[in-house]
Amino acid sequence: MRTQAQSVVINSLRKFIHTGSTSRLCNLIKNYHAADVASLMTSLTFKEKLSLLKTLQERDKQRAAEILSELNPEDAAELLKELQVGQISDLLEIIPSDDVAPILPHFPEEMQDSILANMEKEPSEEVQELLHYEEETAGRIMSTDYYALEQNTDVSDAITAIRLEGDVESGFYLYVIDEENHLVGVVSLRQLLFASPNTRLKEIMTRNVISVTTDTDQEKVARYVAHYNLVAIPVVDAERRLAGVVTVDDVIDVINQEATEDLYKMVALDSSDRIHDKPIKSIKKRLPFLLLSLATASLAPFVVSFFKETIQQVVTLAVFMPLIAALGGIAGSQTIAIMVREIAIGEADWPIARKALVKEMLVGIGNGIVIGVVLAILSYFLLQNFFFGLILGLAIVINLFIAALLGTLIPLVLKLLRLDPALGSQNLLTMCTDAIGMLSFLGLGTLLLRHLQ
Amino acid sequence: MRTQAQSVVINSLRKFIHTGSTSRLCNLIKNYHAADVASLMTSLTFKEKLSLLKTLQERDKQRAAEILSELNPEDAAELLKELQVGQISDLLEIIPSDDVAPILPHFPEEMQDSILANMEKEPSEEVQELLHYEEETAGRIMSTDYYALEQNTDVSDAITAIRLEGDVESGFYLYVIDEENHLVGVVSLRQLLFASPNTRLKEIMTRNVISVTTDTDQEKVARYVAHYNLVAIPVVDAERRLAGVVTVDDVIDVINQEATEDLYKMVALDSSDRIHDKPIKSIKKRLPFLLLSLATASLAPFVVSFFKETIQQVVTLAVFMPLIAALGGIAGSQTIAIMVREIAIGEADWPIARKALVKEMLVGIGNGIVIGVVLAILSYFLLQNFFFGLILGLAIVINLFIAALLGTLIPLVLKLLRLDPALGSQNLLTMCTDAIGMLSFLGLGTLLLRHLQ
Repeated sequence: MRTQAQSVVINSLRKFIHTGSTSRLCNLIKNYHAADVASLMTSLTFKEKLSLLKTLQERDKQRAAEILSELNPEDAAELLKELQVGQISDLLEIIPSDDVAPILPHFPEEMQDSILANMEKEPSEEVQELLHYEEETAGRIMSTDYYALEQNTDVSDAITAIRLEGDVESGFYLYVIDEENHLVGVVSLRQLLFASPNTRLKEIMTRNVISVTTDTDQEKVARYVAHYNLVAIPVVDAERRLAGVVTVDDVIDVINQEATEDLYKMVALDSSDRIHDKPIKSIKKRLPFLLLSLATASLAPFVVSFFKETIQQVVTLAVFMPLIAALGGIAGSQTIAIMVREIAIGEADWPIARKALVKEMLVGIGNGIVIGVVLAILSYFLLQNFFFGLILGLAIVINLFIAALLGTLIPLVLKLLRLDPALGSQNLLTMCTDAIGMLSFLGLGTLLLRHLQ
Repeated sequence: MRTQAQSVVINSLRKFIHTGSTSRLCNLIKNYHAADVASLMTSLTFKEKLSLLKTLQERDKQRAAEILSELNPEDAAELLKELQVGQISDLLEIIPSDDVAPILPHFPEEMQDSILANMEKEPSEEVQELLHYEEETAGRIMSTDYYALEQNTDVSDAITAIRLEGDVESGFYLYVIDEENHLVGVVSLRQLLFASPNTRLKEIMTRNVISVTTDTDQEKVARYVAHYNLVAIPVVDAERRLAGVVTVDDVIDVINQEATEDLYKMVALDSSDRIHDKPIKSIKKRLPFLLLSLATASLAPFVVSFFKETIQQVVTLAVFMPLIAALGGIAGSQTIAIMVREIAIGEADWPIARKALVKEMLVGIGNGIVIGVVLAILSYFLLQNFFFGLILGLAIVINLFIAALLGTLIPLVLKLLRLDPALGSQNLLTMCTDAIGMLSFLGLGTLLLRHLQ
C-alpha cells in the first residue's frame, strides 16, 4: 500500500513538473534511490513521466540513466521513443549493457540500428553481443561488467587493476583467466585483502568454479545460484572462455518472473498481461484462449446431451451436476499446483513422478470416499432416496480419483512434450473432470433410473 | 530430470552404505558440494539416509553439519531424532545458527531444551535469540555471522580483525557500528582494499545504510533486497542496534517459498503439502478444505433446485449448464492470478486497485460479448432457436462480468481483512460464478420459457 509519505512526494513531483521547477525537481529526486524513483513514477501520467525524463536528460544524464535501468524495459522504451535518436543513444551508452539489451527490442527495427550506430563503439558492441543470444538464456541476461585478470598477475597488480576499473556490477569476485581467456579460477576480494602482494593469482585462486554456458536457460541459472547459495555465477562459451557474469539481483528477477509465469500459465494467461495494460490489449491477449476454452468446455455439454432423457425423468440429477463438477475441479487444481511447483523448484524425475502419481491417486480415493460418504448421507436425508445418495457418493469418488490422476499426469505429459508443465493445465483438467464427472454421475443415474423415480 | 550420471552416483552411495564401506562412502561424498549431496539424498530411503548421517557423524562431523544445513529442516530433524542428544548437540553447534533455528522446533519441546543445554554456550544462545523472534520475520531468518567493527577502528586493524574472524556467511560487507552497537555505516571489502591503512572506518563508510528491523516480515525483507539489488541487508532492533544480517541466499528461499504459498493458497492447499508426504498426511491436510468446498459448492445446486420445473420443460438448458459454469471459472481464475501476483510483487495500493477493477470489468464485458456472440450464433445453428442463443450469450456476458468483478474484489477484500489475498480465492470465486451463472442462465430461461419450447 502506498504510504502517506509517498503520496506527498508524488504530489511534489507533480507540482514541480507542471510548474517547470527543474532545479527543485532534480534536488527532490537526488534524495531517492533510483529504484524508488522508478516505482514512484508508476503513479505519474505518461506526459508527466516524459517531462521528468526530458528534464533529467538535460540536467543529470547519469541519474536519468540509473532510473531508466530500474524501469520495466517496455515502459523505458515507450518513454525513450519520444526523444531524438541522438539523445536516446547518449542515455543508453551509459546504462549497463545487460539493462539495455531488454529495452532495445521494443524499438522499431530501423530505429534500433540507428540507436546502436549512434552509441559509442564499446557499449554498442556489448549490447549487440548480448542480443545475439536467445531470449531467456544466460547469455541474454549476463553482465559484461566484471573483474577478470590473467592467472600470472600478482596480487598487487590485481589490486591496482581493480582500482583503475572502478566499481562494477558484480564486484565481489575477481575471475581468473588464462592467456586465451578461458575461465580457470576465482578469487574473492576477501582473499585479495590478505594475500601477500607478490603472490600470483593462480596460487590463491579456487579452481573448481561453478559456471554456466551462454545458452543455459535462465531458469536453470537461477536454480544453480539458489542451489549453491551464490551471489554471482560466471558465464562461459562453448570453449570455456569467460563471456560474462550473471549477478544474483538478475537471478531474483528471473525467479519472480518464472513464479508469475507458473501461476499465469496454469490459467493460460499471457505472462506479459499486467494490471496497467489497456483493457483492449488484455482482451486481445485473453480472447484466443477463452475461445479455445469454449471448445474444451463443450465436451461436458456434449456428454450431458446423451442423458437428456434421464434428466427429464429425474430433474434432481441436473440440480447436483454443478456440485460434481466443482469438487472435481477443486481437487484437481490442488494436485496440479503441487506438481507445477515441484517441477519448477526441484527436478521432478520419473521415479518421483511415479511415486507422486500413486500417492495422489490414493489421496484422491481417500478424500473421495470421505466426501462421497458425507454427501451420500446428507442427500439420503434430504431426498429420502438411498440410491440417489449412492450415485452421488460414487460419482464423487470417481471424479476425485480422475482429478488426482489427471492433475498429476497433465503437467508431467506437458513436460515430456517439452511444453511448459503449467501451460493451460487447469483448463485441460476442467475439461476432463467436467466431462468424466457428468458421464459417471448421469451414467450411474441412467443405470439406476428405476430406483430414482 | 535426474541424469544418468546422478543415477550412477546414487547407486554407488547405496552400495557403500549397504556394504558398510565407510571410507569409500566418505571419499565419494567429498567430491560433491553439500547442496548436491542433500539433493541426491532425496532418492535414498530413510534407513539409508540415517546410516549415511551416522557414518559422517563419526568420521567427518563438519561435512555432516554442512549437509544437514542444506536439507529441508523437517527432514533434518527427522534424521537427527534417531541420534543421541549429545550427538545432536555436537552437530548443531557447528551449523550456522540461522540454519539451526528452523530445525529445532521440529523436536519435542523437552528434547529441544536438552539439545540447547548440551550445546556450547555461544551457539546455543544465538539459536535461542533467533527463536525468540516471530516466525517469518527478519529476526528469525537473519544470520548472526557477519563482520562488524566500531567506527573509530582504522583500516589496517579492520583487515586484521576480518582475517582473524575467518570466512563468514555474509562476507561482502563490513558493517560499522558506534560504541553502543548502533549501525552507523557500511564499508565494502572493495573499499577496504584501496583505503590507506590508517584511515578510520567512519571516514570511508557509506552512511545511509538500507536496513530492516527484527520484526520486519520476511516477504518485505525479500522485496527490499530485490528492489535495491542488494546481496545482504543488515537487521537492527528497535534502538537501531545491529542484530544480524539477512543474506541474499535466504532471500531467494523466501521468494521461492512465498511463490509456492501464493499458488497453493489460491487452491487452498496447506503450504507444507509436498509430493513426498505420506498419502494419509495429505488426506488429513486437504480434507477440511474439501469439506468446506462441499458447503460452498452447494450454493449452485441450491440455485438450480428453484428451476427444476423449467429444466423439466426444456432439458437442453441442463445440457449447457456445465459450459456456463466452466467459462466463468476460467475467466475468473485469470483475473485472480493477475491480482495475486500484482499484490505479491508490487504494492497494489487503492488507486491501482480501482484502476484494476474498472479495467478487469471492461475486459470481462468485452470478452463476454465476443464469446457470447460466438456461442449464440453456434447454438442458433445447432438448435434452430434464436432465443436459446440469446439466453446463452447473455448468460456468458453476465458470468464473465461477474467473474472479473469478483476475481478482482476477492483478493483485495481478503487483503483488507489482513488475510492472505490468495487464500482459497479460487474456491470462493467458483462458488459465486457457479451460482450466479446458474441464476442468470436458468432465470433467463424461465423468463423466455415459452420461446424455447
